[in-house]
Amino acid sequence: MRLVTLGDIHSAAETIAGTALRTPLVPCAWGDADRPLWLKPENLQPIGAFKIRGARNAIRPGMTGVVAYSSGNHGQAVAYVARQLGIPAIVVVPDTTPDVKIAGMQNLGADVIVVAPAERVSRAEELAARHGYPLIPPFDSLDVIAGQGTVGLEIAEDLPDVEVVLVPISGGGLISGVGTAIRALAPRAKVIGVEPALAADARESLAAGRVVSWPIESTQQTIADGLRSPQLSELTFAHIREVVDAIVTVTEEEIGAAVGVLARSSRLVAEPSGAVTTAAYLYHREELPIGRTVAVLSGGNINPALLAALV
Amino acid sequence: MRLVTLGDIHSAAETIAGTALRTPLVPCAWGDADRPLWLKPENLQPIGAFKIRGARNAIRPGMTGVVAYSSGNHGQAVAYVARQLGIPAIVVVPDTTPDVKIAGMQNLGADVIVVAPAERVSRAEELAARHGYPLIPPFDSLDVIAGQGTVGLEIAEDLPDVEVVLVPISGGGLISGVGTAIRALAPRAKVIGVEPALAADARESLAAGRVVSWPIESTQQTIADGLRSPQLSELTFAHIREVVDAIVTVTEEEIGAAVGVLARSSRLVAEPSGAVTTAAYLYHREELPIGRTVAVLSGGNINPALLAALV
Repeated sequence: MRLVTLGDIHSAAETIAGTALRTPLVPCAWGDADRPLWLKPENLQPIGAFKIRGARNAIRPGMTGVVAYSSGNHGQAVAYVARQLGIPAIVVVPDTTPDVKIAGMQNLGADVIVVAPAERVSRAEELAARHGYPLIPPFDSLDVIAGQGTVGLEIAEDLPDVEVVLVPISGGGLISGVGTAIRALAPRAKVIGVEPALAADARESLAAGRVVSWPIESTQQTIADGLRSPQLSELTFAHIREVVDAIVTVTEEEIGAAVGVLARSSRLVAEPSGAVTTAAYLYHREELPIGRTVAVLSGGNINPALLAALV
Repeated sequence: MRLVTLGDIHSAAETIAGTALRTPLVPCAWGDADRPLWLKPENLQPIGAFKIRGARNAIRPGMTGVVAYSSGNHGQAVAYVARQLGIPAIVVVPDTTPDVKIAGMQNLGADVIVVAPAERVSRAEELAARHGYPLIPPFDSLDVIAGQGTVGLEIAEDLPDVEVVLVPISGGGLISGVGTAIRALAPRAKVIGVEPALAADARESLAAGRVVSWPIESTQQTIADGLRSPQLSELTFAHIREVVDAIVTVTEEEIGAAVGVLARSSRLVAEPSGAVTTAAYLYHREELPIGRTVAVLSGGNINPALLAALV
């Protein structure tokens, strides 16, 4: 199986330069002395999440339109990039999607098709075939992984002697790309995945040596709605085996507390999925290496009422 | 009177490089088409405000300790920089200062001296004389103004064709420095100050052609606690006459609403003083030029309960 290379990620960095923000590493005065902490604030991206990187890298010249299925940040990212490039986007969403997210995609110019959750993929494939548009997958794609990998490239550029990189895991696209960049550019650094304990399929998969699926009844319960994917793909699993050192899980209470810490102490609005790495840093010290640590804050699209409650 | 030069600001940029964060310009998808908006998120600085730039530039090699008077971000900035440089800091605060801010300065290693509000300056001068330490003023200093001016330098570097720059005004140090940099590097851009209507002494001063003081009974009422300074200094006024095109005022309701917009739509926690520029952008369109606009978000140190209420 071909895996993403550092060269792919360098190419992606050029492709996404006019679309994604080059986010800084934000130092945290509240970090521990023996493991100083920086945040990689991907919540500052247009549409509020790292997904814009992979979407931009996967939408290529010559495409006359695109289709995606997503209830969340990926759909918004595809809609945003398509509008920037002046091509139509069709996003298939499950009928459980909040109206505010549907409106967000529509405001970005996308056609939003609402279907029963079980029909998402088949309907998206049917629309793609009918219009002759490619399907832009949320994580199971070399181009998407290479795009997300630019997060790791920037971390290594800004902090070459980084020692620990904490990355959320859902379908695995982000950590596959980030891990590939870090292994190549900062090989002494440990790459640690973070999952909610309610959706720890990647941790179990890494231990089992094969892709293990978790029941959606469990994964749907986590407050981290971006991390509910029940399994990795074979492609992301192949990357994770190569480039991830360990996976840590965090509780729902820890995730909520981390959202509050990020708002109060680093003045950043994180969605629960984006706060899992900070939760691991704060509450799982004994499971993590010491040293200069970067926590990827992957996104900030949180319901305002939930944010108010957690602050 | 000698004013700050572009050369002073370039020197300051070198001095502060290891202390202050080089913040990016964050594009806002919610800006108007005819005046696209970027935020300059100084809330991401260590201690959560731009004040760290001026403090770092004013604390020079050979100083064996420093004294400051401040109830807010300047005191934290001086404490932070002094700790980084390994010298003692004494901060004189009025007895109206919240315990959490006193604790914040103490956690940064500062000696905090609590006095009656009227005694702040005299007590700070007395302590400075007794210890042989210089007093680091919050705004009335060429070094402080040059340090704050690095915000403008970075804006011009990142967006050379910027057309409108919105900057909060309190004592005037930030806009004096930012305006100086913008005039030199992006001379077509308009530099617009923003004040609470309850503390609009700078607007009145600019109209009158001299420094006008406002009654503290009025300025103390604004929610924007960083902008309650009742008057400019002669030094900042001299800069403002040269480099500021206009001053806009915003209401308390507008400031609160802008804090909510920044958290919900740009995932940034702003303190009320930091949100006044966004309030002007959102609610005073008719008073502002059109074109590519940067709003300086000067800080993010907000009471969590207030943040929760405004989100």
